[in-house]
Amino acid sequence: MAPSAVQDVDLTASAVQRKTSISTAPDDSPKALDASQLITTLTSNPRGVPTEQEANAGLETVCTDHMITATWTLGKGWAAPELKPYGPLSLLPTASCLHYATECFEGLKVYRGYDGKLRIFRPDRNAQRFRMSAARISLPVFEPEEVVKLMIALLSVDGPKWLPKDKPGSYLYIRPTLIGTDGQLGVQAPKAAMMYIMVTFMPRLDTPEGGLRLHTSPEDMVRAWVGGFGYAKVGANYGPSLMATHDARQRGFHQILWLYGPNGECTEAGASNFFVVWKRKDGKKELITAPLDDKLILDGVTRRSCLEIVREKLAGELEVTERKYSIDEVLEADAEGRILEAFAAGTAYFVCAISQIHHRGQDVNVPMGPEGAPGEITNKVKTWLGDIMYGRTQHEWGVVIPEKE
Amino acid sequence: MAPSAVQDVDLTASAVQRKTSISTAPDDSPKALDASQLITTLTSNPRGVPTEQEANAGLETVCTDHMITATWTLGKGWAAPELKPYGPLSLLPTASCLHYATECFEGLKVYRGYDGKLRIFRPDRNAQRFRMSAARISLPVFEPEEVVKLMIALLSVDGPKWLPKDKPGSYLYIRPTLIGTDGQLGVQAPKAAMMYIMVTFMPRLDTPEGGLRLHTSPEDMVRAWVGGFGYAKVGANYGPSLMATHDARQRGFHQILWLYGPNGECTEAGASNFFVVWKRKDGKKELITAPLDDKLILDGVTRRSCLEIVREKLAGELEVTERKYSIDEVLEADAEGRILEAFAAGTAYFVCAISQIHHRGQDVNVPMGPEGAPGEITNKVKTWLGDIMYGRTQHEWGVVIPEKE
Repeated sequence: MAPSAVQDVDLTASAVQRKTSISTAPDDSPKALDASQLITTLTSNPRGVPTEQEANAGLETVCTDHMITATWTLGKGWAAPELKPYGPLSLLPTASCLHYATECFEGLKVYRGYDGKLRIFRPDRNAQRFRMSAARISLPVFEPEEVVKLMIALLSVDGPKWLPKDKPGSYLYIRPTLIGTDGQLGVQAPKAAMMYIMVTFMPRLDTPEGGLRLHTSPEDMVRAWVGGFGYAKVGANYGPSLMATHDARQRGFHQILWLYGPNGECTEAGASNFFVVWKRKDGKKELITAPLDDKLILDGVTRRSCLEIVREKLAGELEVTERKYSIDEVLEADAEGRILEAFAAGTAYFVCAISQIHHRGQDVNVPMGPEGAPGEITNKVKTWLGDIMYGRTQHEWGVVIPEKE
Repeated sequence: MAPSAVQDVDLTASAVQRKTSISTAPDDSPKALDASQLITTLTSNPRGVPTEQEANAGLETVCTDHMITATWTLGKGWAAPELKPYGPLSLLPTASCLHYATECFEGLKVYRGYDGKLRIFRPDRNAQRFRMSAARISLPVFEPEEVVKLMIALLSVDGPKWLPKDKPGSYLYIRPTLIGTDGQLGVQAPKAAMMYIMVTFMPRLDTPEGGLRLHTSPEDMVRAWVGGFGYAKVGANYGPSLMATHDARQRGFHQILWLYGPNGECTEAGASNFFVVWKRKDGKKELITAPLDDKLILDGVTRRSCLEIVREKLAGELEVTERKYSIDEVLEADAEGRILEAFAAGTAYFVCAISQIHHRGQDVNVPMGPEGAPGEITNKVKTWLGDIMYGRTQHEWGVVIPEKE
């Protein structure tokens, strides 16, 4: 049969769907990822816990005592995951991830609540996106729930020590990572991979002095494109963006506001989602952000939570709109005095008030609250979400980590 | 001074130019990469040399006894490079390259000539592209000539044993790689990096049975885009393409013919450049390939060499054209019986005759030579270049490696 006799299909979309629908397998098939098989080896060399300031002052990100690893091979599937001392990885120089960017990751935070409890925020959403990213970059998939269980297992061990109960309001960062470890240099889907989860310190980024300042993307540089992979949390979205970010920082800005297409649609602010609060021409107050349907931008968990909580709590007061909108619309609204607030939202930056947007020689000076505080809406969203994260509000989005006493 | 008072510049293009113009530095500045500082530690555990068949049968790519590594940090620049036993790399789980695809590479071959000499082909071009890729992905730059010297140093040591004189016509593959090793998880240009060079076996890919069969890219998937990084040999171009390639292979094709834009411009064939030989409507014979000016495609060394040698040797007989051309033009030429040959060109596939192109339910059956051999032009190009590589033709493109007797 000639290859062309095969029915034409949409290769990509169908493949993602096929891959993400894999769950458990019969006994003689490759094994699914199974958190219940976790093998625990505690460190014999526990480290001291630095202060937040000490931890963030160094050249290397400080991690907790342990990490989780799980290896996968094409034939056998997932081996039993391990919880073990944090330490370097040994990789073949030929490893797929070092050449072909077969890698994806997630980012979450774990919060020490004011009620003494340890929480993570909507981990199911990150785990689902993790699987989608894995499929997109030709890495093995897994049941998202197993990743949530593994994160919880790691936090149960390291949480009590590294986020002690006497420090409510503090947090650590969780980084699940999946890399292709295949030592075969041919350009092909990896036949071996490793998932690992680590818990790290991360600087507070949500209150830069004077607010976040954005520079629109250079005309000759595009972050993501229709038909690409901007919606997936794969390494390939980050490295290529660093040059523009680096240059913007040298010029006094924090992040790039990535524009797309001939109309300069606003997409993302750095690696965060971008929101504007403005008065529409019809006088209505609106919270606007780019839509997900072109698959250009990341389906951020914080983004989704902002939209959902504003739709719930400010219904009737503030319209919530996901649509394409251009930098020219922002400039026009600014000229007409209709810009009320703007913010970036993501796990790293949380909900971060934007004070300035620079575009081709023009500045939009975005209003903030008094004394450089976030504006009213930004502050409300930040407070509502923060209260869930830190246990001031009991909410299903805040998942409590069981701790060994 | 407000940041916006700074003169607007084209951030990207200027940054690449600035970075790639760095050469040596004064004594108190970060050190430039310097091959003359090479520290050599030979293996005490030399391995046996497998046959080509044995080497390519395993799950892992087989490398030679040694590798070269060179580390870089932002403050100090490049440390003295080392030639040392090939072995695994130890990387922090937080290493930049494992999360943000801060990685780029090159691919060359080393050939054992029929005149007994060892040669590499136009290594200066690969080294220059390596530097450009490094700059694009925010990794440190270097003088390309130093990378050439390092490759030659490694081949001088491993070449005589791994490509013995009694096996003329054999080759090995050279993979210079540069990765961001920075253990700081923040999304930023790496402050630490490592270059490494290894020499490996690689299967012969230039004569697939029945010729190379291509499947055009799925409608919802684009390899590279204007404003992106398709022209740079960065990992981020490869991982995202694997899913489409994998699916195409499962349907009996070897590679994807990547189309671009609403007109379906032909760009690359897998990770190789794509060429068509056809009769134009005016009756002239033409060799056509996609142009470099949009920065969509890789400036292939084999591509460039094909164009140059055809322009030199077939002047007047075969017009050489670099311009955008669409899959519809190919289909039309096929319908009118004007397609003469097609081939893919790159280091891995060398010059590889294409027999079929499948596009949305339609097949272009490309003529080949008798008994599945390459067509006339493809064969000529392959022979001319091969003769330079294997020392049958003395040419400046073939750089002889000095060997220790």
